[in-house]
Amino acid sequence: MTSYTVGIDIGGTTSVVGLVDKDGKIVRRKDIKTPGHPVASEFFNSLADIIEQFDELKSTSTVLNGIGVGAPNGNYYNGTIEFAPNLEWKGVVPVVELLQKRFPNTLIKLTNDANAAALGEMIYGNAKDEKYFILITLGTGVGSGIVVDGKLVYGHDGFAGEIGHTIYDPEGRQCGCGRKGCLETYASAGGLVKTAVELLSASTDHSSLRSIPTNEITSKQIGEAAQNGDIMALKAFDITAKILAIKLADSVAHTSPSAIYIFGGLANAGDVLMTPLKKYFEEYLLQIYKNKIKLTLSGLPANDAAILGSAALVY
Amino acid sequence: MTSYTVGIDIGGTTSVVGLVDKDGKIVRRKDIKTPGHPVASEFFNSLADIIEQFDELKSTSTVLNGIGVGAPNGNYYNGTIEFAPNLEWKGVVPVVELLQKRFPNTLIKLTNDANAAALGEMIYGNAKDEKYFILITLGTGVGSGIVVDGKLVYGHDGFAGEIGHTIYDPEGRQCGCGRKGCLETYASAGGLVKTAVELLSASTDHSSLRSIPTNEITSKQIGEAAQNGDIMALKAFDITAKILAIKLADSVAHTSPSAIYIFGGLANAGDVLMTPLKKYFEEYLLQIYKNKIKLTLSGLPANDAAILGSAALVY
Repeated sequence: MTSYTVGIDIGGTTSVVGLVDKDGKIVRRKDIKTPGHPVASEFFNSLADIIEQFDELKSTSTVLNGIGVGAPNGNYYNGTIEFAPNLEWKGVVPVVELLQKRFPNTLIKLTNDANAAALGEMIYGNAKDEKYFILITLGTGVGSGIVVDGKLVYGHDGFAGEIGHTIYDPEGRQCGCGRKGCLETYASAGGLVKTAVELLSASTDHSSLRSIPTNEITSKQIGEAAQNGDIMALKAFDITAKILAIKLADSVAHTSPSAIYIFGGLANAGDVLMTPLKKYFEEYLLQIYKNKIKLTLSGLPANDAAILGSAALVY
Repeated sequence: MTSYTVGIDIGGTTSVVGLVDKDGKIVRRKDIKTPGHPVASEFFNSLADIIEQFDELKSTSTVLNGIGVGAPNGNYYNGTIEFAPNLEWKGVVPVVELLQKRFPNTLIKLTNDANAAALGEMIYGNAKDEKYFILITLGTGVGSGIVVDGKLVYGHDGFAGEIGHTIYDPEGRQCGCGRKGCLETYASAGGLVKTAVELLSASTDHSSLRSIPTNEITSKQIGEAAQNGDIMALKAFDITAKILAIKLADSVAHTSPSAIYIFGGLANAGDVLMTPLKKYFEEYLLQIYKNKIKLTLSGLPANDAAILGSAALVY
């Protein structure tokens, strides 16, 4: 018998269903847009359809170990997504219950998408030897997974690790969560774009970004402009890095990790993000933490961490 | 044989040596001023002298189980105090080594003073049934102990739980740690005094605090004025509570505790602190955490928690 596990990564923009073999290799992968399914049960039925169509699972000589799901505000204890600001379903979505209807005899587990990525980093990535680390995802939203003494912190209610919703400026940018000034409004892809647009409108200095209509600028374009030496794009990354560094220094003062891994779309910008981030991070760390925390990119290929981590949930 | 444990609480102003019996009762207690001992070894010799003078330990029918020490920046792994901003000894103080010279065959353990208070709260106080909680001490400094899954978080280096040195305002008040705007500069006893003095100098409104020279005003006097309805003293607590609430909401987003305990000198102010603190705390919490976290005063008499918690270190 050949055994497989399904790992599902639900993102604000795209969701991915992956089929993982016993060696931790993703042998099948299928994307689906997350928005555009106002009824949650229809969305999860579409995911179930994808799983059922994997040829590997149709064979009588294969076993499905289980389905692991990573999703924004995914609750490990309840199996529900609750009040996720970046998803169109409001209130509580009973994810495990919905999938269980389609796979009645299969083990199904859910957690926060960033928690899943942290599990992936711990099992398959750079954090194999770290007992205390934080993984932070910079994408549509800003999520995090916190590992203490070799175990993911779920908290008393399953919702620990929401560093993206720590407050940088109580009078700052409006956040999708209803409050103001959350880290996410500055360090997400949309936050970087907002910072760049603010810089463009505050001066008439040259920038290659001026050739793009401001409502079409993407974080990827800002990253490319910065990599090409565009001063204003570099400045947008500098501001983003400084805010992220201040909030990560706060996180260090909670669990004192030996490493912080940066993951998600913004991480693709590479040095234009990481160079100022490392500088400001050391600057804002409390003395006792200086020069001993590794701040680095995730060790897993983009999207793999969340799928592998989600899959690892069922072990 | 009767057995005892020694618990030592080292504070920025006062240090206390307590003798704890097997039922968790503090049977002896002796204070010593912490400042005024520029050489650390002399200070720890004075503590050792106090222990040796406890009559109970002179009897041949008693056993000393061990000595537990709680101190600012106390490191559980190394047994050292390192770079404590509120103590006069700079650099690294080998506390366990110094005490071990005087008590060569005794088990001696050190941790952060706030961690010790959290252990005390867990074993003897209100947190007996809490697997996820935070204790925060508001005194000369602001310290914290974070409990995850029933265990104190020490972090990779023994320095986890420095919520007092999370940053409220990167351009804010100068902190003893060398950085600016740490929570401690607002929510400590000195921070409250500074806020009150700022309010007094910013207006000519009536306040009972005006009869005190501004360089002599204490947090205790501000607490008493607030309890007597002094508008300006109440305003100082309101500002302090709001800042503390914002930072505690950030802490919740890390480990999602079921309870937060407030401890230390400022906690004695009672409702004038706790009423606005609870209001702002709920206001600034992320939706998923609202209305489910107990925010309350420590369940142990002032000073007992740290001594009992320090003593509990050796078990």
